[in-house]
Amino acid sequence: MVMGMELYDVEDFWKFDLRVGFVKEAEKIKRTRKLIKLIVDFGKEERTIISGIADQYNEEELKGKKFIFVLNLKPKKLSGVESRGMLIVGENEEGKVYLIPVPDEIPAGTKVW
Amino acid sequence: MVMGMELYDVEDFWKFDLRVGFVKEAEKIKRTRKLIKLIVDFGKEERTIISGIADQYNEEELKGKKFIFVLNLKPKKLSGVESRGMLIVGENEEGKVYLIPVPDEIPAGTKVW
Repeated sequence: MVMGMELYDVEDFWKFDLRVGFVKEAEKIKRTRKLIKLIVDFGKEERTIISGIADQYNEEELKGKKFIFVLNLKPKKLSGVESRGMLIVGENEEGKVYLIPVPDEIPAGTKVW
Repeated sequence: MVMGMELYDVEDFWKFDLRVGFVKEAEKIKRTRKLIKLIVDFGKEERTIISGIADQYNEEELKGKKFIFVLNLKPKKLSGVESRGMLIVGENEEGKVYLIPVPDEIPAGTKVW
């Protein structure tokens, strides 16, 4: 599966700030098919993060749960709302998305690497 | 928390091949304090991946479970065994490691991003 993919030093991967975040609020963005706005608590700060999975998951499946997020990505405006990070999910070759919830005992803000 | 960290394009993150892997075998590497050798099934291939968490987790806590791994890292020899990938875990500031098991219904080999 990795054939043809370039190989990297692990230090190159570690430059990304992955952390556990707790989804405090989740709200589909009106007039979009897939966008959902999440308010995510990382312990020391809260962020607005937009994910494109609202065609497959609704607010209730995200709110109150913890997931892994990438934090140090350039902010991106989606449908007028600025997203400051990305939700990590699984996705199969047919485009089916899988949520990967983090066990509740892992505190929000915990570094993931 | 991200203060002072550089911000990256998401495409830069997507160059890493993260996938769900099923741990078929787990065995502490003798004469090391922390190394554990995992045989991990990714559906289309199997890999040997070494993780440095054996001071906190034993074979039984890993074997038979699914986790997220980074696949396209340069192979690394650790205590004479070549590791071809990295187990993704959480870690707090005191060095306590948290396993992040992937729900069993997500097939081995599923892309994570």
